[in-house]
Amino acid sequence: MAAHASRTTAPRSPRAAAAPEPIALPRPRLGRGASLSKALRARRTTREIAGRPLPRQLLSNLLWAACGVNRPRGPFGYAGLTAASASDSQEVDVYVALEGGAYRFDAARHRLVPVTARDLRALAIGRGQRAMVTAAPVQLVYVADVHKLTHTRGFQEPGLHDSETQKAYYYVDTGLVAANVYLFAASQGLAAWFHNCDRPALHRALGLGAGQRVLFAQTVGYPARR
Amino acid sequence: MAAHASRTTAPRSPRAAAAPEPIALPRPRLGRGASLSKALRARRTTREIAGRPLPRQLLSNLLWAACGVNRPRGPFGYAGLTAASASDSQEVDVYVALEGGAYRFDAARHRLVPVTARDLRALAIGRGQRAMVTAAPVQLVYVADVHKLTHTRGFQEPGLHDSETQKAYYYVDTGLVAANVYLFAASQGLAAWFHNCDRPALHRALGLGAGQRVLFAQTVGYPARR
Repeated sequence: MAAHASRTTAPRSPRAAAAPEPIALPRPRLGRGASLSKALRARRTTREIAGRPLPRQLLSNLLWAACGVNRPRGPFGYAGLTAASASDSQEVDVYVALEGGAYRFDAARHRLVPVTARDLRALAIGRGQRAMVTAAPVQLVYVADVHKLTHTRGFQEPGLHDSETQKAYYYVDTGLVAANVYLFAASQGLAAWFHNCDRPALHRALGLGAGQRVLFAQTVGYPARR
Repeated sequence: MAAHASRTTAPRSPRAAAAPEPIALPRPRLGRGASLSKALRARRTTREIAGRPLPRQLLSNLLWAACGVNRPRGPFGYAGLTAASASDSQEVDVYVALEGGAYRFDAARHRLVPVTARDLRALAIGRGQRAMVTAAPVQLVYVADVHKLTHTRGFQEPGLHDSETQKAYYYVDTGLVAANVYLFAASQGLAAWFHNCDRPALHRALGLGAGQRVLFAQTVGYPARR
């Protein structure tokens, strides 16, 4: 774990509000559940989302499906994730904005590390889409940590130090996580919507460093009844 | 279909070799198959891949899972795909390099449109990774068509005309397709590996236009026995 910790850009303390308590996630339990085939058939974007919170177990399952540890010894001897990443850099962090605060998903320990007690969910919707802000319970915010690319534990290649290549990698790797979220949501009858977000405001509110880039966000919740 | 055709950058005729015959794909039949949960648990990158070709039905299923039509009336009244895209632009085309030639996957008609009779599989591996060229039967080549972003049928927004935003969109959208491929492969016991490719050589060999960008490739096949 020490090696992993040294690869993380330490976030500065957010000014806005004291961090809430950590959230211990129950062990993910997906059971047999829906077939992949059914999830692919049901995959769609749904923007009309109810405010009802997700039960803790469902949130745990969602985050595991997104980019949780699926094998203790994956590439290069480290834990492997459900989502691939460039040279296994695992450089896309998922921040989770809930009503009671925002957290970073720690896949290795499968827990939510508190960042701020502020409700950042509205900032997770892009400025041009403010009319679409919903009461949805969960906003996943995708943040690239460039330091993890330049200090990968995996295959070293020159591209990892080139800013254009870095972009290609962290955007693709975000899509790899987001597709898992879409399919998990589809398999559970949940609504999901991948979208722009207020990047500068989230960067400040999450207390991120210079090497971290807020990329996109994805709303998840129960579909609104019409 | 006319509206869709006008959104496509017409590829120039490749100089290298006459195009092979179209490949009619059988209707995708995924059956119940493996659970999403099992696919997520089995998701990994496998680079050791055998040369044995995929049966036509399996190739059909793979391409449908990647970005096939999963509903006739999706966003904005057009067919929806298993993979989301920015403003539903569906701007990432999947080219399929097989031993007998290269094709463009036409999701709307679920068929392979011939592009060249050349075997481009080796070009689908990046120059820095040539030692890893395999005999794998299928290389999926991800190509962004910027014209489809600027002429989206979906929600019009200024970002679609900004080159940096376009990059963010088409790379994320590539990841959304690639994750479907990873999960489908995992569900079927197939090997999959997402990687760099020889972009200039593929651009020429596929006869692509100025608005088209070769991004990445993904190898799929049966795992090599060890």
